[in-house]
Amino acid sequence: MTIVGAGRMARSLATRALAGEYAVRIVDRSPQKAADLADQLRSAAPAGAAPDVRGSDALAVEGADLVVLAVPYPAGLAVAAEYGAALAGSVLVDICNPVDFATLDGMAVPAGTSAAERIAAEAAPGVPVVKAFNTCFAGPLLGGRVAGQPLDVLIAGDDAGARQRVAAFAAAGGLNPLDVGPLRRARELEALGFLHMASQERLGLNWSSAVKFLT
Amino acid sequence: MTIVGAGRMARSLATRALAGEYAVRIVDRSPQKAADLADQLRSAAPAGAAPDVRGSDALAVEGADLVVLAVPYPAGLAVAAEYGAALAGSVLVDICNPVDFATLDGMAVPAGTSAAERIAAEAAPGVPVVKAFNTCFAGPLLGGRVAGQPLDVLIAGDDAGARQRVAAFAAAGGLNPLDVGPLRRARELEALGFLHMASQERLGLNWSSAVKFLT
Repeated sequence: MTIVGAGRMARSLATRALAGEYAVRIVDRSPQKAADLADQLRSAAPAGAAPDVRGSDALAVEGADLVVLAVPYPAGLAVAAEYGAALAGSVLVDICNPVDFATLDGMAVPAGTSAAERIAAEAAPGVPVVKAFNTCFAGPLLGGRVAGQPLDVLIAGDDAGARQRVAAFAAAGGLNPLDVGPLRRARELEALGFLHMASQERLGLNWSSAVKFLT
Repeated sequence: MTIVGAGRMARSLATRALAGEYAVRIVDRSPQKAADLADQLRSAAPAGAAPDVRGSDALAVEGADLVVLAVPYPAGLAVAAEYGAALAGSVLVDICNPVDFATLDGMAVPAGTSAAERIAAEAAPGVPVVKAFNTCFAGPLLGGRVAGQPLDVLIAGDDAGARQRVAAFAAAGGLNPLDVGPLRRARELEALGFLHMASQERLGLNWSSAVKFLT
């Protein structure tokens, strides 16, 4: 899989990917940051593991099974549009929370749509887009569990095979995939991601909580 | 507290209220249904308990600390409007999920608002409205726990004292109140309630799951 971005979510997703024995390529506008994260991931791997991770010296995504946009919105929209035809054959995974970060009091996409739907329609027509991981924070996702339970990964997309590829990745990484259906459910996933974020400070949760459909 | 409605959510909320030693009045357009539910709640009370529950022979809500609208949307909007000035001094608790029940594929309020905000603006101006309990299903709420954990009760409203009254009620009933802030957060709570409902059949959860911010 290819992860676009070298921040905290990129690190956590790559850690889950390596735990699931996926090969990981990290790309970033700064090749140095991509290489540094790859180095750190190799150093952090369990003894005896042979993590297949590398930073790319290009922004290339060709040939990737999964391309994860681990950059904030709306940067991810622009990045996906730049890739264009290079995404053919890949599943594009949108993990963003399009939130007004200045206030943490509203969304940065108009009501009645979602960042995922905009990316699918405007930036990557013809490429299967899957919304996932946006209700997980980077901290809990790094280890994959909270309170002894695997994190739920809520997955939405219009292509069943693409949803399944993302679910398989989540399961391989020790997480609990939940396929919630079509891409328009991203509206609710993004509302939930925003609610979870907006509640952290007032509830004193310290960005360590995990949204779970407890059973 | 007064519960408007005598269905499954009314039963579960009344059960939590009685567990918290709140006095409960049940009102319904059918006084017989209200009386029957009150009888059933008395019968279901633990041995030695003295449940203070009665069905009302009127639709009266005067003098109630909390008035819970346990009827579907948009019926609750009409009921609140009928009460009008009778709600003075009460906190009005909206628990509905304004979902298109024919398809379970969309909301029954326009994007960018919420049933709770409409009730506050159109039906009960001047009365503090609190959104709560809409992410809980009746089954899990009856016992108050899932997987050994108390249910989270997500609470939104513009009046801090009103939110606190609802939080105190939830805590008394053995639940875990989470105050998520202003009434406009009801948009996200209703999106989450809808997501939770829409996911039940496809995930095989059988309406027995509970939304939790796991820590």
